[in-house]
Amino acid sequence: MIKERFSPEMQQNLSDDAWMILQEDYRPEETLKYESLFCLSNGYLGTRGAYEEGAKNSLPCTFINGVFDKSETFMRELANMPDWLGIRLYVEKELIGIDTCRILEFTRALDMRHALLAKRYILEDRRGRKTLIEGIRMVSRANVHRLGIRLLVTPLNYSGLIEVENILDGSVINFGDAPRFKVKHTRLLQNSCLDTHGAYLEVTTRDRKLCVGTGSRMEAFSDGQPVMKNHSFHAFGETAVEFQDFEAEQGKTVEVVKYAAIYTERETPDYEIHCKVRDEIRQFMADGFDAELSRHTAVYARMWEDANIEIQGDFELDRAVRFTIFHLMSTGNERDEHVNVGAKLLSGEEYGGHAFWDTELFMLPFFACVFPDTARNLENYRYHLLDAARENARKNGYRGAQYPWESADDGTEQCPDWTIEPDGTCYRCYVAVYEHHVTAAVAYGIYHYVKLTGDEQFLKEKGAEILIETARFWASRCEYHETLHRFEIRQVTGPDEWHEPVDNNLYTNYLAKWNLSYVLNLLKEWETTEPVLYEELKNRLSIGEEERGHWQNVMEHMYLPKGKDNGLLEQFEGYFDLQDVTIEACDENDWPIRPKALETVPRSQTQIIKQADVVMLLHLLGEEFDEETRKKNYAYYEKRTLHGSSLSPSIYSVMGLRVGDETKAYRYLCRAAFIDLTDLQKNTREGIHAANAGGVWQTVVFGFAGVSMEEDGVVDIRPHMPKEWSGLSFRLHYRGAKLSITVTPDNQADVKLLEGSPVTVRVNGKVQVMGGTS
Amino acid sequence: MIKERFSPEMQQNLSDDAWMILQEDYRPEETLKYESLFCLSNGYLGTRGAYEEGAKNSLPCTFINGVFDKSETFMRELANMPDWLGIRLYVEKELIGIDTCRILEFTRALDMRHALLAKRYILEDRRGRKTLIEGIRMVSRANVHRLGIRLLVTPLNYSGLIEVENILDGSVINFGDAPRFKVKHTRLLQNSCLDTHGAYLEVTTRDRKLCVGTGSRMEAFSDGQPVMKNHSFHAFGETAVEFQDFEAEQGKTVEVVKYAAIYTERETPDYEIHCKVRDEIRQFMADGFDAELSRHTAVYARMWEDANIEIQGDFELDRAVRFTIFHLMSTGNERDEHVNVGAKLLSGEEYGGHAFWDTELFMLPFFACVFPDTARNLENYRYHLLDAARENARKNGYRGAQYPWESADDGTEQCPDWTIEPDGTCYRCYVAVYEHHVTAAVAYGIYHYVKLTGDEQFLKEKGAEILIETARFWASRCEYHETLHRFEIRQVTGPDEWHEPVDNNLYTNYLAKWNLSYVLNLLKEWETTEPVLYEELKNRLSIGEEERGHWQNVMEHMYLPKGKDNGLLEQFEGYFDLQDVTIEACDENDWPIRPKALETVPRSQTQIIKQADVVMLLHLLGEEFDEETRKKNYAYYEKRTLHGSSLSPSIYSVMGLRVGDETKAYRYLCRAAFIDLTDLQKNTREGIHAANAGGVWQTVVFGFAGVSMEEDGVVDIRPHMPKEWSGLSFRLHYRGAKLSITVTPDNQADVKLLEGSPVTVRVNGKVQVMGGTS
Repeated sequence: MIKERFSPEMQQNLSDDAWMILQEDYRPEETLKYESLFCLSNGYLGTRGAYEEGAKNSLPCTFINGVFDKSETFMRELANMPDWLGIRLYVEKELIGIDTCRILEFTRALDMRHALLAKRYILEDRRGRKTLIEGIRMVSRANVHRLGIRLLVTPLNYSGLIEVENILDGSVINFGDAPRFKVKHTRLLQNSCLDTHGAYLEVTTRDRKLCVGTGSRMEAFSDGQPVMKNHSFHAFGETAVEFQDFEAEQGKTVEVVKYAAIYTERETPDYEIHCKVRDEIRQFMADGFDAELSRHTAVYARMWEDANIEIQGDFELDRAVRFTIFHLMSTGNERDEHVNVGAKLLSGEEYGGHAFWDTELFMLPFFACVFPDTARNLENYRYHLLDAARENARKNGYRGAQYPWESADDGTEQCPDWTIEPDGTCYRCYVAVYEHHVTAAVAYGIYHYVKLTGDEQFLKEKGAEILIETARFWASRCEYHETLHRFEIRQVTGPDEWHEPVDNNLYTNYLAKWNLSYVLNLLKEWETTEPVLYEELKNRLSIGEEERGHWQNVMEHMYLPKGKDNGLLEQFEGYFDLQDVTIEACDENDWPIRPKALETVPRSQTQIIKQADVVMLLHLLGEEFDEETRKKNYAYYEKRTLHGSSLSPSIYSVMGLRVGDETKAYRYLCRAAFIDLTDLQKNTREGIHAANAGGVWQTVVFGFAGVSMEEDGVVDIRPHMPKEWSGLSFRLHYRGAKLSITVTPDNQADVKLLEGSPVTVRVNGKVQVMGGTS
Repeated sequence: MIKERFSPEMQQNLSDDAWMILQEDYRPEETLKYESLFCLSNGYLGTRGAYEEGAKNSLPCTFINGVFDKSETFMRELANMPDWLGIRLYVEKELIGIDTCRILEFTRALDMRHALLAKRYILEDRRGRKTLIEGIRMVSRANVHRLGIRLLVTPLNYSGLIEVENILDGSVINFGDAPRFKVKHTRLLQNSCLDTHGAYLEVTTRDRKLCVGTGSRMEAFSDGQPVMKNHSFHAFGETAVEFQDFEAEQGKTVEVVKYAAIYTERETPDYEIHCKVRDEIRQFMADGFDAELSRHTAVYARMWEDANIEIQGDFELDRAVRFTIFHLMSTGNERDEHVNVGAKLLSGEEYGGHAFWDTELFMLPFFACVFPDTARNLENYRYHLLDAARENARKNGYRGAQYPWESADDGTEQCPDWTIEPDGTCYRCYVAVYEHHVTAAVAYGIYHYVKLTGDEQFLKEKGAEILIETARFWASRCEYHETLHRFEIRQVTGPDEWHEPVDNNLYTNYLAKWNLSYVLNLLKEWETTEPVLYEELKNRLSIGEEERGHWQNVMEHMYLPKGKDNGLLEQFEGYFDLQDVTIEACDENDWPIRPKALETVPRSQTQIIKQADVVMLLHLLGEEFDEETRKKNYAYYEKRTLHGSSLSPSIYSVMGLRVGDETKAYRYLCRAAFIDLTDLQKNTREGIHAANAGGVWQTVVFGFAGVSMEEDGVVDIRPHMPKEWSGLSFRLHYRGAKLSITVTPDNQADVKLLEGSPVTVRVNGKVQVMGGTS
C-alpha cells in the first residue's frame, strides 16, 4: 500500500492504492511531467505540482481560470500567477531540499479521492543531519480561495534552530524554459506584509490591468503549541518572504502550516482585494487547517460519489481512468459561467487555457452526465460570447455567429495567425482561417447538452439563439455550385489538420447540414408548440421566410462527397485520389508506426490522416449511416489514422465497439487512459490532455458500457466488456434522474434509479421503466 | 603552461603562469570561493567571479564603491547592484551551461597581469551535442564604466540555431544565502530597451534613492560579419533580457560580445543616467572590444610596473603574493577621494564595504609606496568625513573628532550596535562603544602617509586639522586618576578583541599619547617655521594655550602599564593576572592549535589573545622601545596569539624579522599570502582579506627586504632573505622618487633611482645618495 510509506499521522488523510498516483523517486528530468500530473485544481484555479522548496527544472505555475493576458504574445493566454507554494527550511543556512541534500527516502503521491498532494522525504544535508519531512497540500474545493500546505518536520539525528521562509514568488513568467517565448504577463503592484504577520503580493495583468492578490501566513506547532519566533517580513523585488524560526528537537515533530489565499478583481473590487485576502486567511487560521481539510475532502467525497468509475479486475487501468476523471472534474467550475475548460485544463500553459471544440465534443458529455451544473456553465460561456462570435463572422465576411477556433475570456479569435518555429522562422498559421467546424461543435454541444440534461429552458432562452446564429453562419459559409446544383464548403479544414485546406470536408459539410436541419426542425416544431417563443425569436433575430427557405435549400442540396460506389465515405473531395498509404505495423506500445512512404511523400499528398475525421462524423451522427457503411469506413480509416492528436484514440475506441470491431478498442482505451501517466506523447510536461480525458470517459461509458441516449429518451445499454474486466460500475445523471449502472463480464447491466425523474432504460434490447408510477 | 589549455586566439591575451590563478574543475561547493578569488575590480566597481550562465550556489555581486544603503539592516552596506554578467546560450531550448551539461573540459583562470577572467569549457548536452566555449571578461580600468565579455562559441559536432539571452538581473539581493539576513537594497525604476537594441535597468538605493543605471548590448560575429538576428527585448519583472539568435555551423567559431556600462548619480544627474549608459555603450561598440581591451591591459601594464613584486626561486609564494597585490591594486581608486577600501575590498559583502583601521595600518603603506595618488584619496576620504567624526565625538560625550570604527559614505558609525547570531538571538555589540584606537590609526595614517610621500601640502591643508581634532579627542577621552597622578583610558578595547573592555590598553594609550605628542611637536615647529599656517590653525580650530597645556599634561602623564619588572609590556592593566595559558602546538598548516584550557576557561580570563596587540604597538612605534624589550615581548606574545584575525600573521612576520626571530616569519608570510587562495580561514567566499593583503606587502617589503623609512628621510634597507628565495625585486615610490630594489640571497640589495627626487639609501648600514648632484 502506497500510504504505508507514510507515518501514521499522514496515513489518516490518505487513501487506498486505487486512488493514489505514486512518484517513487526524484529525477530532475521528470520534474515538469510530475508538475502536470500532480496539479491540484478546484475549478477556480490550478496549481501545478511544483516542490515547495524549489527544484531543478521546476517552473511553478498557478493559473486562475478567466485571468488571461496577451501583452506582446500572439494570444490571450492564462497568465502565470505568483507562486504561492514556497516554503524553505534551513538548518544553519543549509537548505533542507531535494536538490541540496542526499535523498535517503522519497515519496510523493497524489491522493485523488481527497485531492491532496502528499510527500515524504528523508534528507541528509552535507553535515550529516537527517530530517524527515512529510506534507500534504490542498487547493480547497470547499472554499476555492483557500490554499494550504501542512508539513511535518522531524529532525532525526540533531536538535537545533530551523529557519523558515514562507515565500510568495511574483517573478514567475510564462514559458519559462523557452528562451524565445518567455513572457511576463503580470506587473507587481504591491509587495507587503499581509497583516501583522504574513506576506502579500498584488499584481495586475499587463494589458487589461486585472488585479490579483495572493497572501500567505505561516505557523508552526509542537505539541499543539505555537513555536515560531523572530518573525520578520522582507520584500525582495517581486518576492515576498515571511521569515520565522523555531527550535527543533531531535525526534520531535513540528507541524508547519502555510495558509494562503487568492482573490482577483473578477470577484471583488480592486481596492478590497488586500482586505479580502487578509480576512480570508484570518478566518482560515481561525478555522484551522484540519477544518478546511475536512470540508475539502467532504466536497470531493460528494463529487466522487457521482464521478467515480470502478473497473474491476484491471487495477492499473481502473486507476488510470480515475486519474483522467480526477483532473477533468477538478477543473470544471460549477459556479462560474464565464469560464470554460482549457485544452490542458488548468495544468499547463500550452494552448493558453483556451477552449476548443474539445469542450463540446470531448468533455461536455462527461460534465452533462456527471456534473450538469458545470455543463450548463460551459454552455452559458458560449452564450455570453455569442456577440463576439457574431463579430467574428462579420469580420470574416459571413453572417450569423462564427465561434473562434480558440476562445479565451472575450470570445475573440485567439488562435495565433503566426507560429514561430524553434529556429525562429515564422510561418502563417491558417487554422483560424480554415478550420470552421468548431462552430458546428458549439451547436452540436447545445443539442447534446439538452438531450442529456433535458434542460429545455437553456435551449429556449439561450441555446436556440446560438443554434440559429450558427445555422445562419453555415448558410452564408456555403457556396452554390451553379453547374452541379449543390452547396459546397470550399477551402476548409476538417478535424484532420494534415490536409489543409480542402474542399468539402465531409465532416464539416455534414455538421453544417445537421445544424441547419436541426434549427429548421426546431423552428417548425416551436411554431406550433411554442408560438410565443417562436414569434419572439423570429422577430428578435429577424428570421424571415426567405432566409428559412434558403437554409432549407442549402440543407437539402449540401454536397456530401461519397467517393466511389463502394460505400466508402470520402473525407473530402479528392481524398481518394491521394496516394493510398496505409499503416502496416504497430510499435511496442501498440501504436501505429509512421509508414516509410511519408519519408518521401508529403503527408498531405497521402491518405494518411492525423486523427478521427470521417470516424468522428460516425461517432457524432452515426444514425445517418447504415451499419455496413459505418463498419466499412471505420475499417478503412483506422488503417490510415496515425493518431497525431490525443483527440483520436478514444473516438476510435468508442466507434470500434459500435461497429463490432473490438480488436483494438481495449488497446485504444489503454493508450488514452495512460497518455499522461506514462507520458506517451512526451508532452505531459505541458499539461494534462483534457479532451483525451473526456474521450476516456466516453469510451468507458458510451463504448464499453455501451450507453447511448436515444432520440426517444430511452437510455440504451449494450455493454461490450473486454475480457480483462470482471466488472464495471458508474453513475449517470440523465434528464434529472441519477442512475447507478453496474456491468458484469457477461455484458449484463444492472441499472438502479438513485433519485430523480422516471427514466426508461433498455439493456441489451430489454426495456425497463425505472421510477415513476410504472 | 596554464594558457596552453586555451585556443591560440585566447592565448594571445593570456599571460605566463606566474600571473595566472587556475581553477581546474567545477565543484558547486567552491562556487562562492571562486567568486571572491576571481573578482574583477577597477576602483570604481567590483564584480565577483560568477558564471555568465548561472551556477549552483552562485550569488552574483557587483558593488560600486560609494553606493551604500541601510534600509532595514543594521548598517549602511554596499548595495548589490544588478548583475550584468548574464549570458545564456541555448540549443533547442537546452541551456549550454555547466550545471545542465556534462563537462568534458573545464578551465577558468584569472590573468592578473591583464586583469581578465578567462574560461574554457567543452560541454555536452543531454542529446550529445558538444560545444566549446571560451571567453574573457574585463572590468575596464581604462574606462571604469565599461564592462565586457567576449565568448568564442564553437559547436563541435553539430550545426544549428543558438539562441542567446543577454541578461541584466536586478533581482539580486545582499546576503542571499543567509535566510535571516537577506536584504534587498535597491528598488527598480526602469526595465527597458537600452537603445534600438539592448537592455537597460535603472535602480535606486532604497533609503537615499541614489540612482544606478546598468545597460548592455550584445553582438555576435562569424568571420567578422554580424550574425545575430531575431532581436527582441523582454522585461521580466526585475530582469531585462535582450534575446537574439544565430546560426552556428559545426567547427566554426562565433564570437559573442557583451558590452555593458554602469553609471550612477554620484557621477551624473539622475535624468541623464540612461543617456550616459546608452552613449557609453554606443562608443564602446564603435571602439570595439579589442580596443578597450588594449587600453585596459595598457593601464594594468603601467600599474604592474610599479606594483609587481618578484620573488625568485619560490614560484607558488611569488604568485600568491602577486595575487594579494592584484586585488589590492585593483580596488584602490586614484580618481575618487570620497571612497575608501573596504575590509573585503569590492570582492564581498562581508563588513558592508566599510573602512576600518585596516586602511591606515595595513593597506595605506602599500598605496603610499606604490600608488600615492590612491593613498592621497584615502587620506582625503577621512578629511571629508572629519565633520562626521566631530559629530560622533560629541554624540559620545567627547571633544574633537572620533572616527567611527566602521565607516561607509557619510562617516557616521556603521559598526552595528546589535549582532544576530545564526540562532536568531541578538546580542549587544560593544565594538563601536569601546574600540577607539581607529581614531589613533587615522592620525597615524596621516603621519605615515606624509612620511612616505612627502605630501606636506596635505598635512598642512587637511591632515593637521584631523591630527588636532583627534588629539583633542584623546585628551577628552583620558581620565585623570587623582591618587596615582596619571591619565588613564578606562573601559576600552584594544586590537585584541577577546578582552573587551579593559582599562588602559597599552596599544591605545601609547597611540593616544603619540597623537598628542605628534601634534604638540608639529604646532611647536610650525609656530616658528610656518607662522601664518600656525595662526590660521590656532584661530580656526580655537586652540588656546590652556588646551595645549592640557594636552602636554595628558601626554606626559599618560599611564603606560609596564607590568612586572621583567621588561614585559602588559597588554592592559591586569593582563598578567589572567590565567597564563600558552600555545603549545601547531597543526599541519603550521597554525597554532587552540589550547585545551580554553575548553573550560573563557578566553577572556586567559592570556590567550586574538591578534597582534602589544606586537602591533612594537610594529608601529618600535623606536619607543629598546631591542631587548622588543625581543622579549615578541617572544612572549607570540606564544599567546591565536591569530583569530587575518590582521595578525603578517604583523608577527614583520616583527619577527625585526627582532631577529626568523623562525616563523616565512611561515607567517605563507599563511598570509595563501589565506584566500587556499581558503585557510574557510571564509574566502565572503571576500578577499584586504588588510591581510596589505600586511603581505608590508611583510615582504618592510620585513624580508627590510625596508624602513627613517625619521631623517633615509631609506634603510636590511634584507632578511629566507633560504627559499633566490631573489626579490620590487619598486617603491618615496617622497617623489621612484626606486627599483633588487635583493639577492646574500641579503645584499641593489637600489636604483628610476625617476624623481634625490634620495638617500642605506643598505646594511652603507649610505648611498641617489640622484641629485651627489
